Amino acid sequence: MDNFQFYSPTEFVFGKDTENEAGKYVRKHGGSKVLIHYGSGSVVRTGLLERVKKSLAAEGIAFVELGGVKPNPRDTKVREGIALAKAEKVDFILSVGGGSCIDSSKAIAAGVCYDGDFWDLYGTGLEIEKALPVGTVLTIAAAGSEGSGASVITREDGLLKRDACSDLLRPRFSILNPELTCTLPAYQTACGATDIMAHVFERYFTNTEEVEVTDRLCEAILLTMVKETPRVIADPNNYEARANIMWAGTVAHNDIVGVGRSQDWNSHCIEHELSGLYDVAHGAGLAVVMPSWMEFTMNHNVMRFAQVATRVWGCQMDFEHPENTALAGIRRFRRFLSSIGMPINFEQLGAKESDIPLLAKKMGINGTTGGFVKLTTADVEAILRIAAKATV
Amino acid sequence: MDNFQFYSPTEFVFGKDTENEAGKYVRKHGGSKVLIHYGSGSVVRTGLLERVKKSLAAEGIAFVELGGVKPNPRDTKVREGIALAKAEKVDFILSVGGGSCIDSSKAIAAGVCYDGDFWDLYGTGLEIEKALPVGTVLTIAAAGSEGSGASVITREDGLLKRDACSDLLRPRFSILNPELTCTLPAYQTACGATDIMAHVFERYFTNTEEVEVTDRLCEAILLTMVKETPRVIADPNNYEARANIMWAGTVAHNDIVGVGRSQDWNSHCIEHELSGLYDVAHGAGLAVVMPSWMEFTMNHNVMRFAQVATRVWGCQMDFEHPENTALAGIRRFRRFLSSIGMPINFEQLGAKESDIPLLAKKMGINGTTGGFVKLTTADVEAILRIAAKATV
Repeated sequence: MDNFQFYSPTEFVFGKDTENEAGKYVRKHGGSKVLIHYGSGSVVRTGLLERVKKSLAAEGIAFVELGGVKPNPRDTKVREGIALAKAEKVDFILSVGGGSCIDSSKAIAAGVCYDGDFWDLYGTGLEIEKALPVGTVLTIAAAGSEGSGASVITREDGLLKRDACSDLLRPRFSILNPELTCTLPAYQTACGATDIMAHVFERYFTNTEEVEVTDRLCEAILLTMVKETPRVIADPNNYEARANIMWAGTVAHNDIVGVGRSQDWNSHCIEHELSGLYDVAHGAGLAVVMPSWMEFTMNHNVMRFAQVATRVWGCQMDFEHPENTALAGIRRFRRFLSSIGMPINFEQLGAKESDIPLLAKKMGINGTTGGFVKLTTADVEAILRIAAKATV
Repeated sequence: MDNFQFYSPTEFVFGKDTENEAGKYVRKHGGSKVLIHYGSGSVVRTGLLERVKKSLAAEGIAFVELGGVKPNPRDTKVREGIALAKAEKVDFILSVGGGSCIDSSKAIAAGVCYDGDFWDLYGTGLEIEKALPVGTVLTIAAAGSEGSGASVITREDGLLKRDACSDLLRPRFSILNPELTCTLPAYQTACGATDIMAHVFERYFTNTEEVEVTDRLCEAILLTMVKETPRVIADPNNYEARANIMWAGTVAHNDIVGVGRSQDWNSHCIEHELSGLYDVAHGAGLAVVMPSWMEFTMNHNVMRFAQVATRVWGCQMDFEHPENTALAGIRRFRRFLSSIGMPINFEQLGAKESDIPLLAKKMGINGTTGGFVKLTTADVEAILRIAAKATV
């Protein structure tokens, strides 16, 4: 196990009706004038926004609002938010929505306190030195942004996706009410589930040895998703399954399952180019990329792939031919993704094989990239070619 | 799943040589004059105390020190610490030791800020309203106190064990260097491992339905302990096994594996009377109590016991007679405890069967107690009678 630091100071408030406590927690964490940031009209239609505003008003907290965050949140909306937050002198950003909305809120929180253009802080490794506090009312179990210090923003000009990460971006509180996710369509629910599983796999495939405790914690989240996801696809109003998935999504990405080990993240990087170019859902892109990445890399550590195949996918270990077990696990993963309605190849995703060189090039790999298996641009092309034609 | 709140703001610093950063973290968390609190002479002999002092001095942080914390930490030492901390006007308590030392440090931290006798805050449910910040340098993987808001103190007069709990008692930072645990004798190591497993089992046995994610997280910690504990007993210097156990111990008790579900805690309550009366190690007492508690309560939910038997203990499920599987799991647990050198009955623990009525009575049960199965004083006596004569 490698040395590590783990710090997850977010206060999580989980369960039914908890959005009505938003005002109380903004007050507790020092907010007196809030920018409420949200995405689509669904938070308006469902009355969620109204309930949140009411809870702020009950605490005597002033607020302004900015909606319209899109999936793969854009730099343009962030700039709008920064300008508004500065003009209105807000001291707290409250995100009401899913991962895109939280990421956009974090970008505004950092941008308000940064003298230059906020985009300087994305993809450059520049340290974020100050940010307004952020709170969240989560509506989609997926990105894990409600418990992480990460934010991913897409630049409108060229659809370039870049990220920033800092403990200062970790939400002060996150309100998680699984009921709010019950209205999500099956496709988005499955995209979220895929994203959650991907967050675990990116950590699971490691070159660090002797990390049983985090291996087992990773497997715990994966096993939960394998059990609960088909239940919500079959019955969107299943509160208990929604609840298990929602907490799994947070635990999958606040790094408690990933500390003390090298991680990979190439599947996410490759997928960012897909959703950047085609504006497809992140989870859908991951469903296409990740099993193909696994096929390409499995010989790097067959026993690790056999381990997840037996422990998570219920495969019998082939002690004579562990590679058969490893491959069987990958196939079950792809079949699982397909069974919950995810695309598994380019055609189903709406991607073009002819774009493969462009997609690989856009990653801008200088030499190699990734933690588990170092990939060249040619390797990424090879993975995308597997992905293009994948079948169950 | 029940509604819950989860808040674990402790900054964990994990790995080799991390004790040398103690000064840096005291500074970061606002300390300028520190009470270093420690237990036995081993932290002196190993040079650990010296390294910690050096790291404080390097940051220009003043300190006073108070050693002599005993296992099952006493109110008398706490009072000594409170008086010293007040006289020296310290603003930070730094614990260098195991769970007893941390619990004593937390009691001092709360007591310094409380006008009356600190004992008022223990076992009464009285809310702690203020406490000095606490940091820890952990030397034993066991109690989980490094990541929890709990503190258990024993009153010298009558050996009464009582606890207090508050988010204000959660350590600001905890430094976890597995190397520091390599010098621990096998018996204490096994006691710690038993305590860690017990913290999970107290959460695992719940009446809340549909809690797959926390079930799986609990099992992840148990599986880790089943794998790693025999390795450290066989080879005390196995850093990797020590590291996995140490992080498992923290995760087992900061409640990430226990949120959103009712918990039990009767085994701990019963054990507190054993270690209170005989001054035996907490883990040793738990090894005697817990499997006997399981035998007594298993019919309350046979399928839950069968689940842990198959998922953790590797038992084959007997679909015709699930109770056989449940019982097989309990037997494997007791055999596991015995194999790592733990006592499993009264004789091995040094307890007396004739004390059973006294032990049960000392719990002071008013009606019933516990979360999974409500126990009367007579039930506790029955459990202790099973424990008295248990065999592998």
